[in-house]
Amino acid sequence: MSSESSAANGNGNCLGWAARDASGVLSPYKFNRRDVQAEDVSIKITHCGICHADVGWPRNKTGDATYPMVPGHEIAGIVQAVGSNVHRFKVGDHVGVGTYTNSCRDCEYCNDGLEVYCDRGAVYTYNRFDYDGTITHGGFSTFTVVHERYCFKIPDDYPLASAAPLLCAGITVYSPMMDHKMNRPGKSLGVIGLGGLGHMAVKFGKAFGLKVTVFSTSMSKKDEALTLLGADNFVISSDQDQMMALTKSIDFIIDTASGNHPIELYMSLLKTAGVLVLVGAPSEIKLSPLNLITGKRSITGSVTGGTKQIQEMINFCAAHNVYPNIEVVPIQYVNEAIERLINKDVKYRFVVDIENSLK
Amino acid sequence: MSSESSAANGNGNCLGWAARDASGVLSPYKFNRRDVQAEDVSIKITHCGICHADVGWPRNKTGDATYPMVPGHEIAGIVQAVGSNVHRFKVGDHVGVGTYTNSCRDCEYCNDGLEVYCDRGAVYTYNRFDYDGTITHGGFSTFTVVHERYCFKIPDDYPLASAAPLLCAGITVYSPMMDHKMNRPGKSLGVIGLGGLGHMAVKFGKAFGLKVTVFSTSMSKKDEALTLLGADNFVISSDQDQMMALTKSIDFIIDTASGNHPIELYMSLLKTAGVLVLVGAPSEIKLSPLNLITGKRSITGSVTGGTKQIQEMINFCAAHNVYPNIEVVPIQYVNEAIERLINKDVKYRFVVDIENSLK
Repeated sequence: MSSESSAANGNGNCLGWAARDASGVLSPYKFNRRDVQAEDVSIKITHCGICHADVGWPRNKTGDATYPMVPGHEIAGIVQAVGSNVHRFKVGDHVGVGTYTNSCRDCEYCNDGLEVYCDRGAVYTYNRFDYDGTITHGGFSTFTVVHERYCFKIPDDYPLASAAPLLCAGITVYSPMMDHKMNRPGKSLGVIGLGGLGHMAVKFGKAFGLKVTVFSTSMSKKDEALTLLGADNFVISSDQDQMMALTKSIDFIIDTASGNHPIELYMSLLKTAGVLVLVGAPSEIKLSPLNLITGKRSITGSVTGGTKQIQEMINFCAAHNVYPNIEVVPIQYVNEAIERLINKDVKYRFVVDIENSLK
Repeated sequence: MSSESSAANGNGNCLGWAARDASGVLSPYKFNRRDVQAEDVSIKITHCGICHADVGWPRNKTGDATYPMVPGHEIAGIVQAVGSNVHRFKVGDHVGVGTYTNSCRDCEYCNDGLEVYCDRGAVYTYNRFDYDGTITHGGFSTFTVVHERYCFKIPDDYPLASAAPLLCAGITVYSPMMDHKMNRPGKSLGVIGLGGLGHMAVKFGKAFGLKVTVFSTSMSKKDEALTLLGADNFVISSDQDQMMALTKSIDFIIDTASGNHPIELYMSLLKTAGVLVLVGAPSEIKLSPLNLITGKRSITGSVTGGTKQIQEMINFCAAHNVYPNIEVVPIQYVNEAIERLINKDVKYRFVVDIENSLK
């Protein structure tokens, strides 16, 4: 970087990489993290995963970008300081932070540990105004300060690099699977799309003892789906015969795909009372009501998960040796990694090695 | 009728009223019911409700009409004979028969008491080929013969005329309410449309202790909804302000409406994890995925219910004094009644007095 003290780079106690405009290109940027409050934890960030949100938001795809924007919401690191009222964490603990870092802590959802659905609106980890009026900045930065409620304990023997993607990709598929009781062996799971979310869905499915079918548009994913990830079945979604053969055979489908795809067709693969859950970003959904009515089928959606479920998921991954497949890259590679993510050229999650490359 | 023995009227042991062509006009018709088999119950039909299915099928709206067609699948009557292996019923019992009269009795759904979702396909009470190749005929007829599994006990003190609409309208709304645990006091229920199904949904909602909001296109229904049926709230669905005021306030919506209506708008009235269930016949559904994803909302459908739930519902209605509002008419009025049903001119269910008018 040319000069850390220039206006373009900002000033402050924390060094991050920020997007400055809708090009989405990230570059070094200094900004201020708040002082540690009584219930806060200060975390030296070691790793941060690259999520699809880190493609769309910096490029202002949702029209609500505030620049400079420091992305990253799959954060893993080590506690470096705690406030006077912090009881769950101590200096040296391995911890994670996910897609939100504040909520009202007083509504029915917060009280149920479902903070992401907070009535006042959960404050996302970046590109959001916190309740105090400051803008939130994400994990492509040296450290962060968050209320302990939004921190999660990572067991010491679970690699921090592997933990990072659990905080968004992991919980996003784990949460609806648990909500719909898909942790019961013998049930059948369909996974549409084999990216960061999809490959975690396959792993959870196998850890739960399910029969897992992967749906993909690309034959190139077949070997990996079956051998590397252990799926039971692989289907090219454009193959009419293969699809028809699965009619009424699947209990639960996780749809991680974006854009236009034949959701109606997938609905007909569900058993009676089966559920399709959207966790990606499909375009408009068009459905014939008959498929829902005569089969008692449901279509629903889900966004990450509450704090209770996040900790439960991390513990499950540690206990059952569930690890995302990651490619660890330095922060200097982040723009190229994002390009590769857009081109689906990653198996299956980039994780930025913040600790060793952002200095 | 001109002559009961003419070809047009048919021959046989049972007198019914049948549609002969897609005009849907019903007229007297004689046909054969099977002899009572070991597990069969023969029922003298006293009453039969008029359902929307009795509008569409006789007019071949679904393209699968077989003529002559004797409609009617909200049947109530009195047992007049039982087979040698029948254990649940005896002559003189009050019984009901609903929308299906056979199923494979061997698949996972039949074994779960969910026969309407039978893998082989439940055999509907009329306009379907039974497994023995004969065509089924419905309740606009003097008697019927069905396997005891598809008969339900009606308590002696529950009027048979009132029982008839429970067998389709009642179970169609009761089943999804129970499936989604809406029998818990204090929850909020929305009911779209106030016809045969909708008015039963309001009654069950109040019997369950729910806060019930009725959505209608017509202000003329307001007084009845609030005073006669006891709903807590009445909203004209075209009133933007009233609708917006209910954003994120409802746990469960039963949509009994047909044709085009703004399902997306109703979805936004659901609380987090709320469910909208389709039980009517809407046209194509178009939804923005965001409404599902960010609110964890579901849209689903349901068709009548299994035998276990039907008996449970009848018992519930008897125990809690839940009665449909009916207008009892003679069979000679059936064609006019169907016209009035099409014009929504009924409060809220026609029931044909078979016993006293069909001779």
